[in-house]
Amino acid sequence: MKRIAYLIVAVVALSSAAYMARASRFDGGDAAPIFGITIPPGYRDWKLISVAHEAGNNNDIRAVLGNDVAVRAYRENKLPFPDGTIIARLAWNYVPSEENNKVFGRPQSFVAGAATNVQFMVKDSKKYASTGGWGFAQFKDGKPDGTAKLETCFPCHVPVKARDFVYTRYAP
Amino acid sequence: MKRIAYLIVAVVALSSAAYMARASRFDGGDAAPIFGITIPPGYRDWKLISVAHEAGNNNDIRAVLGNDVAVRAYRENKLPFPDGTIIARLAWNYVPSEENNKVFGRPQSFVAGAATNVQFMVKDSKKYASTGGWGFAQFKDGKPDGTAKLETCFPCHVPVKARDFVYTRYAP
Repeated sequence: MKRIAYLIVAVVALSSAAYMARASRFDGGDAAPIFGITIPPGYRDWKLISVAHEAGNNNDIRAVLGNDVAVRAYRENKLPFPDGTIIARLAWNYVPSEENNKVFGRPQSFVAGAATNVQFMVKDSKKYASTGGWGFAQFKDGKPDGTAKLETCFPCHVPVKARDFVYTRYAP
Repeated sequence: MKRIAYLIVAVVALSSAAYMARASRFDGGDAAPIFGITIPPGYRDWKLISVAHEAGNNNDIRAVLGNDVAVRAYRENKLPFPDGTIIARLAWNYVPSEENNKVFGRPQSFVAGAATNVQFMVKDSKKYASTGGWGFAQFKDGKPDGTAKLETCFPCHVPVKARDFVYTRYAP
């Protein structure tokens, strides 16, 4: 009886591990340079903070997700964000949806195409003291982008220092 | 000692209830007509399925979230969606971000403005047999939209019958 119970526990554990693995193919893996950040496990399941479209060179449509620390801080208007906050920016190519447009009879629908890259901001006020308490990372197909790319992150976030260097506002 | 333990449990329960309440101001409340759907508690915390921009009359930017049944079915490519699936479509006014554009030096950033409305598709193959197994609802500021509006939902979803009447594809 005890053996069956163990077996059931093992099967449940394995199948939820497999399910979590499917949630994101790239969790863990190589660390990004400078800040030493790896892809946080399960980030694809995090709660939604907001959405945006970046035209121009990016030409993407994006979602910003947060871990529980991040989302709680947003909802409580807590600034600066506490240590342990992680904000994830997912982005996909911005593509017109031909199948939707056919139904609507006009070009109006733009959807998420292939994933472009994923970015993370990780708050650790001691470890990342020289960059406003934030570490930055960017991954494409699970592979971290290099030093040159990451050196551009913090300077671009300085204009929103008053919001603890975070651009995205919470979408109610 | 036992009394203190009870007190701690009560305080934790109350503060998480308050936290959940803040997650969405409009959970529960009045039911939408025809299908009798109320706002599902905690939907604002559901996992992300995808994002889109609808131009034209809507002119919104939107996120599609799913409850656990929905997200699991999407990730396992399971069609038709099983009973218990709920898909939520949140939308906000599509607005240029002046503060972002100032930083980038060009108009490129479009973000979520005020919330427009929230829609739900609820799968119950018996209860909603006459509309492909789906019930539809739309809420604005927590108030359900009326019969005339909801009667337009199913006909518009018929063109994607082959995908169980669901337009949105999962964004990886």
